Amino acid sequence: MKRHIYLEDIPLDEAWAVFSAALQAEQLWQPFLTELIPVSEANGRITAEAVFAKISAPHYHASAMDGYAVRAQDTHGATETSPKQLALAEGSAQAVNTGHALPSWANSVIMIEHTQPVTLADGRSAIEIRAAVPPWHHVRPMGEDMVATELVLPANHKLRPVDLGALAGSGHAEVMVYGRPRVAIIPTGTELVSVETAVTDGIYPGQIIEYNSLVLAAQVENWGGIPTRWPMVQDNFVAIKTAVSEAAQHHDLILINAGSSAGSEDYTAHVVQELGRLLVHGVAVRPGHPVILGMIEPGKGAREQGRTGDSPLQPFTHSPLPIIGVPGYPVSAALTGEIFVEPLLARWQGQPPHQPDTLQAMLTRKLVSPTGDDDYVRVSVGKVGEKVMVTPISRGAGVITSLVRADGIVRIPRFSEGADAGSDVKVHLYRTPREIEKTIVVIGSHDLTLDLLAQHLAEKEGAWRLMSANVGSLGGLVALRRGESHLGGSHLLDPETGIYNESYVRRYLPGQEIVLVTLVGREQGWIVPPGNPKGLAGWADAANLDVQIVNRQRGAGTRVLLDYELGQLGIAPEQVRGYEREEYTHLAVAAAVASGVADAGLGIRGAARALDLDFVPLAHEQYQLVMPKTHYEGELLRPLLDLLHDDKFRTAVANLPGYDVTPMGQTSFLTT
Amino acid sequence: MKRHIYLEDIPLDEAWAVFSAALQAEQLWQPFLTELIPVSEANGRITAEAVFAKISAPHYHASAMDGYAVRAQDTHGATETSPKQLALAEGSAQAVNTGHALPSWANSVIMIEHTQPVTLADGRSAIEIRAAVPPWHHVRPMGEDMVATELVLPANHKLRPVDLGALAGSGHAEVMVYGRPRVAIIPTGTELVSVETAVTDGIYPGQIIEYNSLVLAAQVENWGGIPTRWPMVQDNFVAIKTAVSEAAQHHDLILINAGSSAGSEDYTAHVVQELGRLLVHGVAVRPGHPVILGMIEPGKGAREQGRTGDSPLQPFTHSPLPIIGVPGYPVSAALTGEIFVEPLLARWQGQPPHQPDTLQAMLTRKLVSPTGDDDYVRVSVGKVGEKVMVTPISRGAGVITSLVRADGIVRIPRFSEGADAGSDVKVHLYRTPREIEKTIVVIGSHDLTLDLLAQHLAEKEGAWRLMSANVGSLGGLVALRRGESHLGGSHLLDPETGIYNESYVRRYLPGQEIVLVTLVGREQGWIVPPGNPKGLAGWADAANLDVQIVNRQRGAGTRVLLDYELGQLGIAPEQVRGYEREEYTHLAVAAAVASGVADAGLGIRGAARALDLDFVPLAHEQYQLVMPKTHYEGELLRPLLDLLHDDKFRTAVANLPGYDVTPMGQTSFLTT
Repeated sequence: MKRHIYLEDIPLDEAWAVFSAALQAEQLWQPFLTELIPVSEANGRITAEAVFAKISAPHYHASAMDGYAVRAQDTHGATETSPKQLALAEGSAQAVNTGHALPSWANSVIMIEHTQPVTLADGRSAIEIRAAVPPWHHVRPMGEDMVATELVLPANHKLRPVDLGALAGSGHAEVMVYGRPRVAIIPTGTELVSVETAVTDGIYPGQIIEYNSLVLAAQVENWGGIPTRWPMVQDNFVAIKTAVSEAAQHHDLILINAGSSAGSEDYTAHVVQELGRLLVHGVAVRPGHPVILGMIEPGKGAREQGRTGDSPLQPFTHSPLPIIGVPGYPVSAALTGEIFVEPLLARWQGQPPHQPDTLQAMLTRKLVSPTGDDDYVRVSVGKVGEKVMVTPISRGAGVITSLVRADGIVRIPRFSEGADAGSDVKVHLYRTPREIEKTIVVIGSHDLTLDLLAQHLAEKEGAWRLMSANVGSLGGLVALRRGESHLGGSHLLDPETGIYNESYVRRYLPGQEIVLVTLVGREQGWIVPPGNPKGLAGWADAANLDVQIVNRQRGAGTRVLLDYELGQLGIAPEQVRGYEREEYTHLAVAAAVASGVADAGLGIRGAARALDLDFVPLAHEQYQLVMPKTHYEGELLRPLLDLLHDDKFRTAVANLPGYDVTPMGQTSFLTT
Repeated sequence: MKRHIYLEDIPLDEAWAVFSAALQAEQLWQPFLTELIPVSEANGRITAEAVFAKISAPHYHASAMDGYAVRAQDTHGATETSPKQLALAEGSAQAVNTGHALPSWANSVIMIEHTQPVTLADGRSAIEIRAAVPPWHHVRPMGEDMVATELVLPANHKLRPVDLGALAGSGHAEVMVYGRPRVAIIPTGTELVSVETAVTDGIYPGQIIEYNSLVLAAQVENWGGIPTRWPMVQDNFVAIKTAVSEAAQHHDLILINAGSSAGSEDYTAHVVQELGRLLVHGVAVRPGHPVILGMIEPGKGAREQGRTGDSPLQPFTHSPLPIIGVPGYPVSAALTGEIFVEPLLARWQGQPPHQPDTLQAMLTRKLVSPTGDDDYVRVSVGKVGEKVMVTPISRGAGVITSLVRADGIVRIPRFSEGADAGSDVKVHLYRTPREIEKTIVVIGSHDLTLDLLAQHLAEKEGAWRLMSANVGSLGGLVALRRGESHLGGSHLLDPETGIYNESYVRRYLPGQEIVLVTLVGREQGWIVPPGNPKGLAGWADAANLDVQIVNRQRGAGTRVLLDYELGQLGIAPEQVRGYEREEYTHLAVAAAVASGVADAGLGIRGAARALDLDFVPLAHEQYQLVMPKTHYEGELLRPLLDLLHDDKFRTAVANLPGYDVTPMGQTSFLTT
């Protein structure tokens, strides 16, 4: 097993400098593909040259109304009291519809509404008018819209629907646009299986569903390129080299996914070195370190000379082409797309790099960043009242859902150690500011019905979004106190009163008007493997030396419940095996049990059922939504609160095992 | 000739109420098409149902690093000074790469960087470690990303690249999305010719290039639909009825373009009546009045039952389908798309209607609006200094370039008479706020080189945009005084000094620091038909009774020049035939001459040459750019000012007839 460490870790701007210089030397740091295409196929494409009008529009003097063409001077003197009559004859009056050419003798149009049909004494048909018209009235003079030779659209302009109209209207059936860059995406890795195979044949430990190529291909498509997803290639030097060489024949850019790190089977750098020049191996960005940038030279003359098909694409003048080694972790891969691929494709299409909307907002947690790296921190953004809050999503580069749920990115530059809680940061948004405004921020205890709530909300109100973070019931109350959320799920049992939440709300949210709305009643109990092999039966089994448990994090209502019951029984945490292993959700507890890491964990029945586990019921509890009265009464939460009385939603929850919807929607008001 | 007037003119909200009620009755006021498609083809599509994870991700405990799988308890006690050695053997240490499954006996991973290969006394290979690791270190536990059964994405979610990763990663090879609505676009009108025909065969007065279907098709595409551009149909009741009936067989919506007015050949309303129900004929929106909304019923069972092809599309349950009669004027047609088609297509795909970015800005001109209509006013938006200014583009509904150049729309609701100059209005933007920030606003005299400037600017700086309005030199100085523009083109001759611009700048922009930058020297003269049939030779020909001229508007430098020279010769305006007919640009003057409306007009040589006209030179003049010093020194104008020293740009201007680039870039500073 040959194993070695990263070659280098150079700063992002230096990496770009090296890469762009190499591209520049090959005339590849500029648009280099153009094609003449029918205007009817040009929507969304980008003009490669300025377009000037070939003909004027209108190309003749046109009637702008349905009515009669006349000579303005013939209408002089016509009034309500002394109407004039104009015979329907050449040189006098002629019916015209909108768009008709004005007869050469006429210079004005009278609207049909302002005429009366009459018959003259000599029997000829005529119109009667009761007002004079000035010359050029209701006439669209030739060139009113565009005069031949005028600039219609500049180069580097992304064509919109109305632009197509202006192009055709000025005599263009075709338009010269930049060619769409062809990008090969080569997934490598012996451990990879396609999702189709995984679905039909199942998947085994150590196998990974290959989806980075799906993400990269869709990114390339969104950025104006034509992606080719290459078949997966095994971790084999020759196989990878062959794939890259073949892809180089018909593409403008190659993305090779993974194998860019320093693991035992990471061949990408060697392949790039063998086929051309390895420019950069390792960039100081996080996530994404092991990025490779290079130029490969598949052999002069070997590349296809121009695109096949019948579009008159300018032929290639270059033989070398760029290659980017994209790291394997999905978050790193997607961000490498944004950081390296997007600017290059934009440049090839005469566009500035994409600049997302930005927002200044307050950081809710301290953000620590390695000084050596440009750090791209995924964050969620919530607007609560008038404050916009940013919370870092502190998950690994392997967690694609962290990017799916991210509202934006905060960039922490090199030489910065991060930012303090409460400081103002700039967020590069993945969503529109409007979407942020319609986002209900739920921070607190986790419950499976929150997923259902999010789903039904999205179905009922397309613009609304539910963003939930699982930090436990107490964490939820703290977030509410800090004004970071609209509401929080909570199920905190007061051991002295047996009442849920109230005493905690009074303690954590003093001096406020708070509303408690019950979402569901639910069962808590031991989540155990099928058949309950260790035979758990009650709370006391926590101290069973034969039982390894998995716990919830401090501040979770479920943890409070466990601690309370252990205290009643006089069991100390030290007596409980696995007490220190904490998970943040019921499903994560169930997953730990399902994977064999633990024999049991306290959680809700729904989580056990979801993963086909068994369940030993121990307690009933109320899961409530806690919110300030101002939010309760506001417009944002209305659709969510309405759902609690919606039959479809109640039925969906009732169908989940272990839930009682009877108390759903019960509301109590508390002045703390 | 059968001619009649509009049926009605009902308010927009009422029109929607009638239309949506009819759609609701047919279950067409909701999404009604879904299809299961491969995730690899789902980029940009919209989920038709919530998606839950089928498998956990990771679906096993995975190493998060390249290194060695160990038992955490075996590492206890290892320090710098007392390293521990672990044999490379089952139950002790095992090499793993990122993504590998953790062996069942292991519970932690040590990074390769933190190990040293050693050989044990018994000859076995081993690693030496100098620090202990906790359990689950560098391990991605099963379900870290997604736990099976968890909500991955809600319904009504537009799929982004990272979403495809999350779908595949949670075991989905396919996803249920809304079907793309199929929209037939039927252009009608005997006067229509395709742009292809116009290009190959030429075009005659009265013929109109059909491009509304291009615009509508591209709009439908952008809004998620599948457009079909129907062949053009003659103005013939039977032909139109046949086309509509045929299109109805395979489409979800029909757009029929034009024939919706009350002209002699407007059959659309009759066809809708014949095939179903005419719900609305005439809506009080401007532009766009003659909109038709209806439901047609092509015969039960006659419609295709589901889409052809192999996608399991839900079959139609409806026979009737909506039809929208789109007005013929291009601006009306495009806005009818935005007002009626977009919301319907959005609704069919579970989305809220598109809400453009908005901006509050100051109106520079009084805006008068008919009280009876919802008025959609095209505007240009410029940011000058800290002020954002909105200027209505007061052009007819036939002028597609007014929409091409519009930065947004100001909606003036019914019952409002408009808004005063200086008032604050809300603009619905067609561009991003960032594009507005990078827009150089040029208001003043017209010169053909401004087009070239716009073109070269776009080529050099993709993000920059030049927005120019032609109001004449004096109008430009007034706009500068009001702070509405960054600069203005000016060529105002001071008759007393013979010097251009300075005295006017002192008078119109007092108490400021102003910079004058010469763009070009150019020739002014009579623009005349080829061969100069009326034999014009000098200024005095303006008074020739045989010569019909076309003039420039008051305040234009060219008008000032003409008035000055006429004054010198003692010629009164009344002596000049056509003196009162005003055009706003040199090209418009040339177009008037080319069309035979006038025998001559004063203008620049370039405009004459552009339309293959002849030119009688009369004067040389300096065309200068006037700007406040603060703008001159600012970042926004830098690329434009740099262009004046750019060889490529200078050569392009020099190649235009009648231009002298020698003085280009000459700069003088003026404190007024």
